[in-house]
Amino acid sequence: MNGAELLVRAAAASGVEYCFANPGTTEIPLVAALANEPVLKPVLSMFEGVCTGAADGYGRIAGKPAMTLTHLGPGFANGIANLHNARRAHTPIVNVIGDHASWHLNYDPPLASDIESLAGAVSGWVGTSRSVAGIGEDFQAAVEASYQNGGQVASLVLPMDLQALEAPRGQAYAALRAPKRRFDGDKVEAVARELSAGKRLVFIVGDEGLSEKGLEAAGRLAQVPGVRMFAETFPRLSYRGGGLPDLDRLPYFPEVAIEVLDQYDLVVCAGVPDPISYFGYEGIPSRLAGRERLLDLARVGDDISGALAALANMLHAPEFIPSEIGIELPPAHAPLSPQSIGRLLSAALPDNSIVSVEGGTCGYPFFTASVNAARHRVMTNTGGAIGQGIPAGFGAALAEPGTPVFCLQSDGSAQYTIQTLWSIAREQLPVVILIAANHRYAILQNELRRFGVEEMGAHARNLTELDRPRVDWKALAKGYGVAAESVRTNAELQRALSAAKDSKAPYLIEMEI
Amino acid sequence: MNGAELLVRAAAASGVEYCFANPGTTEIPLVAALANEPVLKPVLSMFEGVCTGAADGYGRIAGKPAMTLTHLGPGFANGIANLHNARRAHTPIVNVIGDHASWHLNYDPPLASDIESLAGAVSGWVGTSRSVAGIGEDFQAAVEASYQNGGQVASLVLPMDLQALEAPRGQAYAALRAPKRRFDGDKVEAVARELSAGKRLVFIVGDEGLSEKGLEAAGRLAQVPGVRMFAETFPRLSYRGGGLPDLDRLPYFPEVAIEVLDQYDLVVCAGVPDPISYFGYEGIPSRLAGRERLLDLARVGDDISGALAALANMLHAPEFIPSEIGIELPPAHAPLSPQSIGRLLSAALPDNSIVSVEGGTCGYPFFTASVNAARHRVMTNTGGAIGQGIPAGFGAALAEPGTPVFCLQSDGSAQYTIQTLWSIAREQLPVVILIAANHRYAILQNELRRFGVEEMGAHARNLTELDRPRVDWKALAKGYGVAAESVRTNAELQRALSAAKDSKAPYLIEMEI
Repeated sequence: MNGAELLVRAAAASGVEYCFANPGTTEIPLVAALANEPVLKPVLSMFEGVCTGAADGYGRIAGKPAMTLTHLGPGFANGIANLHNARRAHTPIVNVIGDHASWHLNYDPPLASDIESLAGAVSGWVGTSRSVAGIGEDFQAAVEASYQNGGQVASLVLPMDLQALEAPRGQAYAALRAPKRRFDGDKVEAVARELSAGKRLVFIVGDEGLSEKGLEAAGRLAQVPGVRMFAETFPRLSYRGGGLPDLDRLPYFPEVAIEVLDQYDLVVCAGVPDPISYFGYEGIPSRLAGRERLLDLARVGDDISGALAALANMLHAPEFIPSEIGIELPPAHAPLSPQSIGRLLSAALPDNSIVSVEGGTCGYPFFTASVNAARHRVMTNTGGAIGQGIPAGFGAALAEPGTPVFCLQSDGSAQYTIQTLWSIAREQLPVVILIAANHRYAILQNELRRFGVEEMGAHARNLTELDRPRVDWKALAKGYGVAAESVRTNAELQRALSAAKDSKAPYLIEMEI
Repeated sequence: MNGAELLVRAAAASGVEYCFANPGTTEIPLVAALANEPVLKPVLSMFEGVCTGAADGYGRIAGKPAMTLTHLGPGFANGIANLHNARRAHTPIVNVIGDHASWHLNYDPPLASDIESLAGAVSGWVGTSRSVAGIGEDFQAAVEASYQNGGQVASLVLPMDLQALEAPRGQAYAALRAPKRRFDGDKVEAVARELSAGKRLVFIVGDEGLSEKGLEAAGRLAQVPGVRMFAETFPRLSYRGGGLPDLDRLPYFPEVAIEVLDQYDLVVCAGVPDPISYFGYEGIPSRLAGRERLLDLARVGDDISGALAALANMLHAPEFIPSEIGIELPPAHAPLSPQSIGRLLSAALPDNSIVSVEGGTCGYPFFTASVNAARHRVMTNTGGAIGQGIPAGFGAALAEPGTPVFCLQSDGSAQYTIQTLWSIAREQLPVVILIAANHRYAILQNELRRFGVEEMGAHARNLTELDRPRVDWKALAKGYGVAAESVRTNAELQRALSAAKDSKAPYLIEMEI
């Protein structure tokens, strides 16, 4: 048994099921070890951003870490953007980063770089193995770290020589699991007191608060006079539909969010950090509400749904009554619009499906419509590093074999990790990729207008338009082995969604809007 | 005039021609400023690795920095892999990284991250603008830094508020250029003395030593008894063909390189660092030659060709006699092989063309054949971060409008920055992309065999094979608007190369091997 085999054994014992990998020469012993370990399944991607995005989606659904395996600093760096999103989503992930043999590193060979600095920028925990005997414990320390602080990214650097060295057989490694969530009853009482004192309270609910239990409690609280409930703008995982209450998302632009929050005396944070503007705009405060108006009900990683339920009970809030479900379909022969896409997708969602949303063009209208859909779960881009939606959908599909997954995806952001299509095709997963093809960075054109640019000259168009040439999405999908079609009307999309669901295989639908 | 306009003006004055951009909200003032600046041309890519790889290729050919513009830490991180290669190539590049408004950053908004650590891992110089009045000087400091140490990556972090603030008009900015290269005559004399003393010398020539002047001098020195000349294994830019002498590349695998170098008393470094094994292998030393056997003729950034010419003169080396050019074509109807591809491409190269090589499968055979091709320049992957070849070819094509560029590219590495096809199509550049499609990571399978894995089981194949599904390269090219065909025989490739050259437009040839 060598160090790599020790690591793989520790990973399997820890409960790690998947290794999202794009290895190189310095990970060869690990590749060889993975070849002989039945529990830990290696999944190859053709770009590291796919591996880390998939680990994020997997971790959100499975509630436990996947492992990624990347090649030295540059290979890991390709995965940083999606680890940034995972960091903001509090997703447990364990990265194993191969490094040069310890005795080789001092000579500064071409592929050497400062891996610890790169890993540190997105990890809550960074370690480097120093002895072959300790590799299993190092890996388990990374898994344990990934469960801390409500879930975080842990990165272990593994020099190639240690992977290959003969190791003592090692002990039996323990199974590891997430620590039990708890809430603070004093905080619940403090919030109840403010309400009893006649204060008007607006809640922002995030993290585990957007589970079924949390939303049902939120639905009860919303009926208490003086209370308004919002969901955080970009949840890691939110249950939706199937009669769950309609929690609006806190508006994205700060001037709108501030206006909404200002109507209340206090802002109650339930599993979200202090509410902050996504970007800073001149003349608009960063804080959406002053510190003196903030009240903590529960923090990220706490039993937020428990705290919400306890508060609802304490206040004798009315019982939760599920709302009716059912979507009114848009006119069949009208051209697609973001609104009609939102409704058609909502109507098509099977019970218990997963939707990975990236991009504002269709994301917001889908959110509006989907409250009346069948019960489903939504993942969003928590950190703003684009190229997250399709990899996250890919990982989610692996976390729950057979569950239908839908990626509602803007065309611009889809390109950053386009290679995911190949991995989805290889694993033959029931993932439907809906590309909202407006052939431009619409968000940038909006921001240019906000900045005062009234006419887009040639250079401004060059930097914000994605036509000339238009990406041929059907051809791209074919290139990666994914069935695809292109639709322009509501009826076409409805039929395509039905065909895609029936195929129980990867399917890409380009929606021309 | 605002800060962004000041920066753009300073960039144009500094001699910067291109801005390879993938901007976001925090770069909106820069986008607006670029829209109004005629000298500095913005070039959009759909992924940041394309921007930085293009800046690397551009800088190698133009000898001056391009600017990249990326969005916060995650956007910049997507460009790190190719900046790693640029760092190893000593390519001057100036990265401008937009950041949150300074007053917003303290609130840790979702897209905040440790940009300085990320930039530091690949940059010789990192700065952050602190006042709007100084932005032009900050940019010029970055350009000057990019010319230091033989060429390096310089990164300037530019908070959004400073971009938008009203700025004083600023002075006229100076034109900047690379410092003059020099060599140390004492070192030349020291090398000459060793030869006169009867020592056998092996030279490793790199950097500017592989220019026409440097190679002609190397060709003269190769005729001196007791001298052997090698080129470094992965040159940033090497002139080749057109009668230039045939400098072998130093072998890649350390045991072979050591055997070769051991035949000589001393190893002379001419524009290369100490020769080190690319990877460390158990039982094989990292140093390809002991320190006591190393002699410096010139360092990276020096006038290496000047030092080689001075040495040749000092030793009264014979005149350089250009060799004959001309390639024997392989049998027309035989299937393609790496060897036949090397010869067919060599035969097809027009005078003064540029070849960007990434991947060993066809790279080594091409190198063998191309010494007898017309005069051309070769760029290779200097840092080992894959996904470099096509972006570098893209940047090179912009550096010399009209020059035919050929990317000889392995299929695995091409995927990392596949979005480059779209940028090449958009700019309608005469770039021919040759994909060596063996549908596997051949290097990893070789390394697994070196490691002792004799039979590839299902998991080992899963991690090293790229079929199931096979990438359909013609479809991918069509997806991005690039004309393409697929070839299997020598005659087909010869005809395709001819059609591609005639088209003077982007053209992808999938070579099934």
